[in-house]
Formats: sequence, structure tokens, C-alpha cells
Amino acid sequence: STQRTIAVLPGDGIGHEIMAEAVKVLENINTRFGLGLNLEHALVGGSAIDAHGSALPEATFELCARADAILLGAVGGPKWDKLPVAERPEKAGLLEIRRRLDLFGNLRPAILYPQLANASSLKPELVAGLDILIVRELTGGIYFGQPRGIRILENGEREGYNTYVYNESQIRRIGKVAFEAAQKRGGRLCSVDKANVLEVTMLWREVMDDMAKDYPDVELSHMYVDNAAMQLIREPKQFDVVVTGNMFGDILSDAAAMLTGSIGMLPSASLDVNGRGMYEPCHGSAPDIAGQNKANPLATILSVAMMLRYSLAEPDAAQAIEDAVSKVLDKGLRTGDIFSPGNTLVNTVEMGDAVIAAL
Amino acid sequence: STQRTIAVLPGDGIGHEIMAEAVKVLENINTRFGLGLNLEHALVGGSAIDAHGSALPEATFELCARADAILLGAVGGPKWDKLPVAERPEKAGLLEIRRRLDLFGNLRPAILYPQLANASSLKPELVAGLDILIVRELTGGIYFGQPRGIRILENGEREGYNTYVYNESQIRRIGKVAFEAAQKRGGRLCSVDKANVLEVTMLWREVMDDMAKDYPDVELSHMYVDNAAMQLIREPKQFDVVVTGNMFGDILSDAAAMLTGSIGMLPSASLDVNGRGMYEPCHGSAPDIAGQNKANPLATILSVAMMLRYSLAEPDAAQAIEDAVSKVLDKGLRTGDIFSPGNTLVNTVEMGDAVIAAL
Ligand SMILES: CC(C)[C@H](C(=O)O)[C@@H](O)C(=O)O
Ligand SMILES: CC(C)[C@H](C(=O)O)[C@@H](O)C(=O)O
Repeated sequence: STQRTIAVLPGDGIGHEIMAEAVKVLENINTRFGLGLNLEHALVGGSAIDAHGSALPEATFELCARADAILLGAVGGPKWDKLPVAERPEKAGLLEIRRRLDLFGNLRPAILYPQLANASSLKPELVAGLDILIVRELTGGIYFGQPRGIRILENGEREGYNTYVYNESQIRRIGKVAFEAAQKRGGRLCSVDKANVLEVTMLWREVMDDMAKDYPDVELSHMYVDNAAMQLIREPKQFDVVVTGNMFGDILSDAAAMLTGSIGMLPSASLDVNGRGMYEPCHGSAPDIAGQNKANPLATILSVAMMLRYSLAEPDAAQAIEDAVSKVLDKGLRTGDIFSPGNTLVNTVEMGDAVIAAL
Repeated sequence: STQRTIAVLPGDGIGHEIMAEAVKVLENINTRFGLGLNLEHALVGGSAIDAHGSALPEATFELCARADAILLGAVGGPKWDKLPVAERPEKAGLLEIRRRLDLFGNLRPAILYPQLANASSLKPELVAGLDILIVRELTGGIYFGQPRGIRILENGEREGYNTYVYNESQIRRIGKVAFEAAQKRGGRLCSVDKANVLEVTMLWREVMDDMAKDYPDVELSHMYVDNAAMQLIREPKQFDVVVTGNMFGDILSDAAAMLTGSIGMLPSASLDVNGRGMYEPCHGSAPDIAGQNKANPLATILSVAMMLRYSLAEPDAAQAIEDAVSKVLDKGLRTGDIFSPGNTLVNTVEMGDAVIAAL
């Protein structure tokens, strides 16, 4: 195959350590499968602020814009929390990449690996075999809606305001991602809204209902967001694919990830209309354990697999990585976050090495 | 004591059945403690639509406005789901009472009764002794923000929009409720926001920080809403009092309630600035089991206790009810929702009778 470019953005905190392992795995696979991938590194988030005064330097964005896919570690940390929000790693780095590249389709699988059945805080019978896909709209909704800000009222006090907004095309394009994902999976799609209160989600529900006619093989249901939060806890296996807006998706995807008890295991993809995208672990930059060679690199390694599958059309290479991760778990190797007695505690680098050995 | 009026609004679905039991208990306590309470009944929600064409008839509102406290069952059901949202039981009934009476302070305890330790879907050691209070702002935020609606864009497609808005006084008055609740409980308050993205919640965080100076005995922390959803699942006992806005509070309070596995047990209070308020179970109108004498009346009975404590200053009467409920659970009496083998299955009426017998 021809030369393809992967933008590698470690970010901040544990981002550096987990990305080093993911890159080791990707380079190994690159050679082994002759993928012709060319890895280019760049700074983003706090480390980019420190080096260049901006969370998303133009050189980094330019690389992201021309790359065939982007691999991101995690951004943010207490060091930059005193900056105005608009300049912080999260908003000026992560959200800017999403927005400028129009990565509206966020896929967040919540899978419980059988080897980690006991890691969940839920009773094992409720989560054994859990396999949910949350499809979150990522470049619209209240995250990006205008007008927004803090204004002074006539009586002198301040008022903060944000706008939750979606138009029909925005709803349709995320709907398409979700219906198609449901077709490839169990054929069930649950759309989450608050249509009993919010007009913007009444439109959302109407558009989803309308789209359902074009997907007779998908069974569409609707659920209010408060009930969805409950049902995820009560009986998570009732879900197959869940689709929702940016804000509800942020909350529910984190809840779903936590149900597995192994958020250090979960990858994610953020795709544009052409399937080009950014891949990153679901967890954050974990400043509390950064630099200690303790973090679990598997979510990032599995993000590499997701990237190979979704953006690079290399399903065999993806499968090889996923199988290797499964073998490592079978061997009982565990980083601290997923450790339980009877297993072998390993550090970040050892875990990366073990995946390569299992390839 | 002088004559006081209680507005009794059964609502829809199981509302009628559970309210009948709560009223039995309240009348018994009224006599026994000489409380001088005068119960007046009125229709609200779907049953009011059927009888009077409006989810909140003026006579019902007038009763609510002059009553010393309001006891509500639950509203809504499939029969009225085809109405325009603005006329439905939820929005035209429940949300209108909240708004017109300015019941901004919503207290939602999530308590796991020791007798029901196994009802939770979480592992028992994570939830045993759980006792969280969620303080939710109930008359502002995106539920009531203007502008809102669905408009036609220039290109002919539709766009839905809502406004998430809070001013400083709104934040301060719910902050006061939350800080004072924390003072009376474990002294810890966690304010939940999305201040890394939403300006309205940056103001929220700033005001909470400012208020903390006036409550040196309360330890204030902040958490992003996505993390809060995770932490509730991972380690719910880390929380004492949680304060948040209307929409996040809707989601998190339902999640917290579900952690206990016994949402049929949880009461709630919605208070105005003077502590006058409406009391209702956390659960909904459960149309699927309505009319079957199956529903758990304990959340409504415990709402009576909460009403006696918060709005009527009758702590002894409140305690008597709470003790009676505990005794009934000790005896192993359970409605279907909280039933587990080894206990005695009872119906709605039997449960109400058992509480009265235990008084
Ligand atoms: C860091 C933050 C802005 C971000 C979000 O809210 O989208 C994160 O929580 C996520 O889910 O990717
Ligand atoms: C019925 C609905 C409008 C209501 C809300 O969202 O506030 C309910 O979910 C609640 O939490 O009391």
C-alpha cells in the first residue's frame, strides 16, 4: 500500500507514557503487515501551551488536517487549570481539533472483557458479556451553540448562558452513523433525549423517527436521559447501540464506560463524514499518576486497533492487536487499575512489551 | 396547633394507589399527634386533562398556592403522550406547579435501607450504608431558559434550540440550600458542573466558591458532570451532599436513586424560599403496573414524613412514620420491586396497612 500519515499527539499527563506503548505496537504492526504508515509526532494541549503558547499550534493542526488518521493520548492537567477556559488544553486543544476537522461522529464502545468480569462495581451477572456502543454527536449541541457567555444584567448581577442547538442535517448525519452501526451489530438503536422538556430534543426525536423508515432492519426506541442513566445502572445489557447529543453523550458514555470497571481499557473514535478520524482512549490525562509508569496503555493500544479498522481499512492488523490484548489478559497481566488478587501486576512499559510479545 | 391545609394530588397511573396509602398513614398520624391537618384533594396531570381539559386547572393551582404543603403522587402516561408537549401532564402540570410556586430547591435523598442491601445492582460493599443528598435547582436552567423553540432556517430546514441560563441570585439561593444541608449532615458539598466547556457553569462554580467563604464548616469540592456520573457508579459513598443545576440534577438524581436499587423507596421535596413545598416520590407514574395493586407506596409514605419534617415542623410525627417503615422492612414485608427470596410479598394496600399497624 502507499505511504499514509498518522498524526501522533501524546498530549499531557499519562498521555506520553501510554502513547509510547501504543506507538511501539503500531510500529511493530506497521512492519509486520507492511502497512506503509508514516508516524509524525506533534504537541497538543498543555505541553503545546508550554512550548508554543497555544494548545493547538498551527503546525499541529496542519499535521492533523493532512494526516490519514490521528492518534491522541489525553490532554489537560492542574498546571493549566488557572488559564481562562478558552485557552485551556481541553477547549483550545481537544475541542478545537474536533470542531475544525468536523469530527462529529463519536463512537464509544463499552465492553466488559470476560477476563475482567470482576472489575465492575456492578454485580457480575448484570455486566458479564456487556457490549454497548454509544454514538455521541461531537461537534454540535450545547458544546458549540451560540450565543454563549456571561453578561451583566440591568440590576448589576451576572448571568451565564449557553445554547443547546441542533438542526435537521446535524441530527441526520449522526443518525446515519448510529443506524448503520446498529445494522452491523445487534440491530437495536436507542435514541436518548429529553423530549418531554427540551424543544431541541423534540426535533431530534422526530428526525430519528423519520430516519427509522429507511432502516427497516433496525429497531428504534426512545428513552429520556434521566431514565437512560437509571437503566444503564439497572440493566445495562438491554442496550445495543445508543445515540444521543454531545452533552448527554458525554455523561452517558462515561457512565457506560465505568460500568465495565475498566475505563483504562476503552478506546474511542471521532469521525468526519468521510470516516477520517481521531482515535483516543476514553480516560483522561490522570495527572495524579503521570510519570510513574503505572498507567494502563491498553485503551490507547486498542484505539490503534480501532483506527486500523475504521479509518485505514486494515481489519487484519486491527484484529491482530485485539487478539494480542486478549492473550495478555488471559495470561493474567494487569496494570494497577484492573488488578485483582491472583493476577500479575505489571507497569505501563511491561504491558506494552507484553502486547508486542503476544502479536 | 391551628388548622393547616395539605393539598393532596394523586395524579395519574399508580399515583392514585400509592396516594391512597399515604393518605391513610397521614390521617392516622394526624389524629394520633393532633396535628390539625386538613387534607384537600385535587386533580393534576392527565386525570385533570381528562376531567377539565388542562393539566393544572386553576382550582388545583389555587389549592396548591394556599396550602401549607403539597403531596403529589406522579403524573403522565401513554394516554397523553400524543398531546403537544406544552399541554402534557409533565410540562403543563408538574413543571407549571414548580415554576408558578417557585419551588426551586429540590432535595433528593438516595438512601440504601440496610434491610434492602441486596436490592442494588452494585456490589453490596460499595453501597451498604449509602446516604447521599442530591440538591437540584428546579425552576431555572435549561428547563425554563428563553429563547427556546423550533425555527425554520434560511435553507428551509428546521433547527431546535434551548437556553441554559442561570444568574447569580439563582445560583446563590440553591447554594444556600445545599451549604445548609451539608452543615446539618456530613459537612461535605460537591458542586457538579461542566465548567471546562459551559460558561453558565463557570459562573455557577465561581458563585459556589465565593459562598464557601461563608460556610467555613463545609468542605466544598467541584466535579465535572461526566466524572460525577462515573464516580456515582465507581464509589458512591464518597459523596455527602451534591448540588447541581436542573438538567444535570435530573440525570444524576435518578442515577443515584437507582444505585440504591429501590427507587420505590425514595421521597423528594421541592421547596420555595420560605421552606413551603411539594413532596413526591422519586419514581414516576408507572403506567405498566397501574391499577394492579402492586406499586410500592413507601416512597409516597416517606414523602409524607419529609413533609412533616421540612414544611410542617413536626419532627416527631415524621420520625414515627420513618420508624414504622423501618419496622415493616424488618418484618420482611416487600412489594414486588424490592422483593427478594425469603421475604413476604405484599401488595400496595397491605403495605400501607402494615405501616399503620407498625405506627
Ligand atoms: C475534556 C472534555 C472537554 C471532553 C468533553 O466533554 O467532550 C471529555 O470529557 C470527553 O468526553 O472527551
Ligand atoms: C417528568 C419530568 C419533566 C421531570 C423532570 O425532568 O424534572 C422528572 O423527570 C423529574 O425528575 O421530576
